[in-house]
Amino acid sequence: MKLETTYQSNNYPIIVEHNAIQQLHPFVQSYKDIVLVVDAKVEEQWGETLDFITSEYDAHKLVIPSGEATKTLAYYNEIIEELLSKNLTRNTCLLAVGGGATGDFTGFLAATLLRGVDFIQIPTTILAHDSSVGGKVGINSKHGKNLIGAFYRPKAVIYDLNFLSTLPYSEIISGYAEVYKHALLNDSHAVQTIEQQYNSRQRLSDLVDIETYIYNGINTKLNIIIQDEKENNVRKHLNLGHTFGHAVEYKFKIPHGHAIMIGLIYQFIVSNINLNTTFDIQRFINYLHILDYPLTLISDFDFDSLYQLMLSDKKNDDAGVQMVLLQNYGQPIVQHVDKTVLKQAFHELQTYFKK
Amino acid sequence: MKLETTYQSNNYPIIVEHNAIQQLHPFVQSYKDIVLVVDAKVEEQWGETLDFITSEYDAHKLVIPSGEATKTLAYYNEIIEELLSKNLTRNTCLLAVGGGATGDFTGFLAATLLRGVDFIQIPTTILAHDSSVGGKVGINSKHGKNLIGAFYRPKAVIYDLNFLSTLPYSEIISGYAEVYKHALLNDSHAVQTIEQQYNSRQRLSDLVDIETYIYNGINTKLNIIIQDEKENNVRKHLNLGHTFGHAVEYKFKIPHGHAIMIGLIYQFIVSNINLNTTFDIQRFINYLHILDYPLTLISDFDFDSLYQLMLSDKKNDDAGVQMVLLQNYGQPIVQHVDKTVLKQAFHELQTYFKK
Repeated sequence: MKLETTYQSNNYPIIVEHNAIQQLHPFVQSYKDIVLVVDAKVEEQWGETLDFITSEYDAHKLVIPSGEATKTLAYYNEIIEELLSKNLTRNTCLLAVGGGATGDFTGFLAATLLRGVDFIQIPTTILAHDSSVGGKVGINSKHGKNLIGAFYRPKAVIYDLNFLSTLPYSEIISGYAEVYKHALLNDSHAVQTIEQQYNSRQRLSDLVDIETYIYNGINTKLNIIIQDEKENNVRKHLNLGHTFGHAVEYKFKIPHGHAIMIGLIYQFIVSNINLNTTFDIQRFINYLHILDYPLTLISDFDFDSLYQLMLSDKKNDDAGVQMVLLQNYGQPIVQHVDKTVLKQAFHELQTYFKK
Repeated sequence: MKLETTYQSNNYPIIVEHNAIQQLHPFVQSYKDIVLVVDAKVEEQWGETLDFITSEYDAHKLVIPSGEATKTLAYYNEIIEELLSKNLTRNTCLLAVGGGATGDFTGFLAATLLRGVDFIQIPTTILAHDSSVGGKVGINSKHGKNLIGAFYRPKAVIYDLNFLSTLPYSEIISGYAEVYKHALLNDSHAVQTIEQQYNSRQRLSDLVDIETYIYNGINTKLNIIIQDEKENNVRKHLNLGHTFGHAVEYKFKIPHGHAIMIGLIYQFIVSNINLNTTFDIQRFINYLHILDYPLTLISDFDFDSLYQLMLSDKKNDDAGVQMVLLQNYGQPIVQHVDKTVLKQAFHELQTYFKK
């Protein structure tokens, strides 16, 4: 399946297929230098599959630590100096092979190396169906996640579904959180369909027809970012579940999607309080239990520290914390939420997970 | 005098006037947070003039070391974390008050803080007439100058000519190098006129009618960058004198424009060799002597180390060093230059400065 962005200019293709990586050639043939930046775990499992890139294009290869560990200023400094030591020209393309963190990190390298060189996203996780599209790149600050970065479009997203076959279940449910979020932003039919499709741990683990849902997720995201690339208005909707989710992720260092699912529960609770919606919180939590999401740590949460982290969210404005809430499935809205409501919702969340 | 860029969108005004800073209000009134980033020397001499910004807009103020000292990864890390500690939102504007380095550094902060916030250039030197326009921002790598950065447009350039009154002569001739370079890119009439206008150290030191030449310089630059913002073709012409100049600047840590003037001599020599032009090198050097440019260190130069630095220039392509040469005044061309020619020109340059 192929998609293409529809900006006014500088569009890029998104190829979502098994063996997609075999279609790399036209995208990289004209560069003087190719730098392959590969997540260490991916290199371990798929190193041989990637070998043709280093041999055919005489690519430099950088194997980087797996996951968010790379997204620090210290590691960015180290790697950008290493890249600059190679006398690269602007006619260079970085290939980001890995999950969301690898894409974020490599994209930020590309955005700032010699005032910008090209890069291609080659996502290897379900989660990265989200982060590889839309041009958000960046690293973490000691004050919060993704606070240092840029909007910088890739030249292509080459999403080879073969990579998904070696994902551990923990990583599958991390990615599924964003796929599910895209269904929430779509409509109630999409939510019903995806819950029926993945109604057991086994079916999700087997990734039955996952390409359809990944494709739908990317499509939902594209429709939004085309209208608002720089997140001045509707793109904020993609942050559904992220205000609380990012705080949890940052504090407890758990996989992104695990935190986002918790952020989605929290958001339903806040919506019920602030918008008088009637989302069935217990039903949703039951669904997450069926899929084996690790949720027990919720009972250890402390409001004050998570609230402090929510205060540094990039969506905030003069009035304080801004959250994306759901008026209904497919009807997101950005709203200021008072600290008292945030606290009330927090305590309600914890009642579902009493020790 | 007011200019405005003429991109397809996101244009910005350039105000070149005495007391221009009094016109700041409409550009900053709507931000939640203003951060004033001021060069320490400027703060020392002009702190009181800037006080109205902190008082009227409740601006944060950061006084940073003068000059290139700020443009390191280590200092960037320190300051971006400091900014992020203030819980800033995207509704923030950074004001860069200082020379080119302050603008480059602050612009790179703005480009990467929360994936990009607004910034305004408030140049205080002649040199910064060049760097404040065109959206190039960045910091230095240990492998060379400006190798880490972005193309990121300011929201406005507010060029208050009052600041120039406290510039030491060393800084005046540093800035004059870029003004003169813009005349070279213009035509022979412009070169003749500017040389007549500043035909003695006294006249340059008095900055007689400098606004006209600053205005002409900005205009020349604008005409070029509008055609090619990202330096794929004609913008490279603005690098006249910079291939050798940057190498000299980086190695000897001398003011940018002092190095660029040396780069301009070198470029004339290479043009004479490669393009069979007949630029009168001695006449040009005489002119620089009249203006008291410090040129004695040329006799200490070592080709190999400068050549290594030229190899990391961002303009280079597969074939090696690319230089901007002059076919005639106002007729620049980008050309590959062989190492043998670079070496020959280097030795010719040194013959003019034998100990």
